[in-house]
Amino acid sequence: MRIVVKVGGTLIAEPDIFTNIAQDFQVIIATNQCVLVHGGAKIVNKVAETMGKEQKFVTSASGFRSRYTDRETMEIFEMVMAGKINKELVTSLQSNGINAIGISGVDGGLIRAQRKGRIKIIDENGRKRMISGDYTGKIDEVDGNLLNLLLENGYLPVVAPIALSHEYEPLNCDGDRTAAYVARAVSADKLILLTDVSGLLIDDNVVPLLTAAEAKNEIDKIGAGMKKKVFGALEALEGNVKEVIIASGLLDAPISQALEHKGTVIS
Amino acid sequence: MRIVVKVGGTLIAEPDIFTNIAQDFQVIIATNQCVLVHGGAKIVNKVAETMGKEQKFVTSASGFRSRYTDRETMEIFEMVMAGKINKELVTSLQSNGINAIGISGVDGGLIRAQRKGRIKIIDENGRKRMISGDYTGKIDEVDGNLLNLLLENGYLPVVAPIALSHEYEPLNCDGDRTAAYVARAVSADKLILLTDVSGLLIDDNVVPLLTAAEAKNEIDKIGAGMKKKVFGALEALEGNVKEVIIASGLLDAPISQALEHKGTVIS
Repeated sequence: MRIVVKVGGTLIAEPDIFTNIAQDFQVIIATNQCVLVHGGAKIVNKVAETMGKEQKFVTSASGFRSRYTDRETMEIFEMVMAGKINKELVTSLQSNGINAIGISGVDGGLIRAQRKGRIKIIDENGRKRMISGDYTGKIDEVDGNLLNLLLENGYLPVVAPIALSHEYEPLNCDGDRTAAYVARAVSADKLILLTDVSGLLIDDNVVPLLTAAEAKNEIDKIGAGMKKKVFGALEALEGNVKEVIIASGLLDAPISQALEHKGTVIS
Repeated sequence: MRIVVKVGGTLIAEPDIFTNIAQDFQVIIATNQCVLVHGGAKIVNKVAETMGKEQKFVTSASGFRSRYTDRETMEIFEMVMAGKINKELVTSLQSNGINAIGISGVDGGLIRAQRKGRIKIIDENGRKRMISGDYTGKIDEVDGNLLNLLLENGYLPVVAPIALSHEYEPLNCDGDRTAAYVARAVSADKLILLTDVSGLLIDDNVVPLLTAAEAKNEIDKIGAGMKKKVFGALEALEGNVKEVIIASGLLDAPISQALEHKGTVIS
């Protein structure tokens, strides 16, 4: 079976998470081919702060909060995501006997995206306005060739959420959407989105099972952070991924537990 | 033909060097398989300074000056080498139509090294003493499998000089020695060491041609920085690389010119 796992940015900052995930992969990799996609926003913030570069967050007209990624922030984002978090994950997996290889979306032209450039935000006074100079991207395509080559040769690719624009600039991409497009590109059977809550909560309860149609209907009841995951899930399902599981990464053996449907299953 | 090119850390800080090298590779890649190994010490220093982490340099008992790489410095070194310089090189190559993929020595367990840990230095008073806590490595092996897989599938691997210790720690490796071991691992025909001088200078003249035996004889006349390159060259030749060229990276089309023996040829 092919499984794509995404570990979110809030989890990445948790102690022991790397070891926990690596040990879980030891079991899973024996009978499956896996790709790991990671976030790392909190660590980016921390390094940016040490470098004296204040991070700005903006709210889009559709209600999503995101990092305003100017050129200097993009350089820090890329350095931390591809050079620090990605390599720490790879080292942790390697030390558990898993032949991981870390790449970002610029490597092998893996992830191509449209640079947003100008984005419509809601400012602190509640007014809509356009801001420019943003280096975030909307993914057009993930090229499956490199990932398939690595998977077929026994490697576990670890992917940092950075894309290459059509003008060859590095871009900051949403981790959940990246994972969804990676899952499509490798024809994954399952996409697991690990986060710091137990699944999709509606009225404080974890929804165990949801069809794509139901997920679309419920979308307005869902908070902004989880909404990105549900959008990612829908994009994966539309690309023929069979099942998406949103689950807690804070449990022991979180991937194995997600495979046993502990969390929210969307299919 | 298989060619390994190393671009040194002083060159990496030069303007236009990335474009210059990428455009040269466009020509060379048409009929050869290539690997690029890079340094980046100057950029590491710059980022470390911005992060308020003072860099210490020590002189070994054998006269080599090197970075004292404590844990925190190693984290910065890895982040900058693998996440910034490596990815900027890949992006530049991609924008010139070359399918580059950036990896470090931890990826796929590519480079394994012995951690030095304790090193003998000469302190500011000229006294020899031991210091510990150093994360530098002496390379034991570069695994050719991953590089061969990528080369045979049309990729140009770009390698950051970081190794994995036998205790699974990331280590700072000398770029020239890294390039030499990479050249051995892929059975390279030629290793080109690009630097900011025109070749090996003895009494202010570029030595055009040198056998391995002659290089060994001349080693004591050579300054510390160039000595590392000559040691790298000898290691490559002992590993059946046919020819090593030490040449200037500041010329137009520096790789093509090195292939035409503009520089010092050791064989």
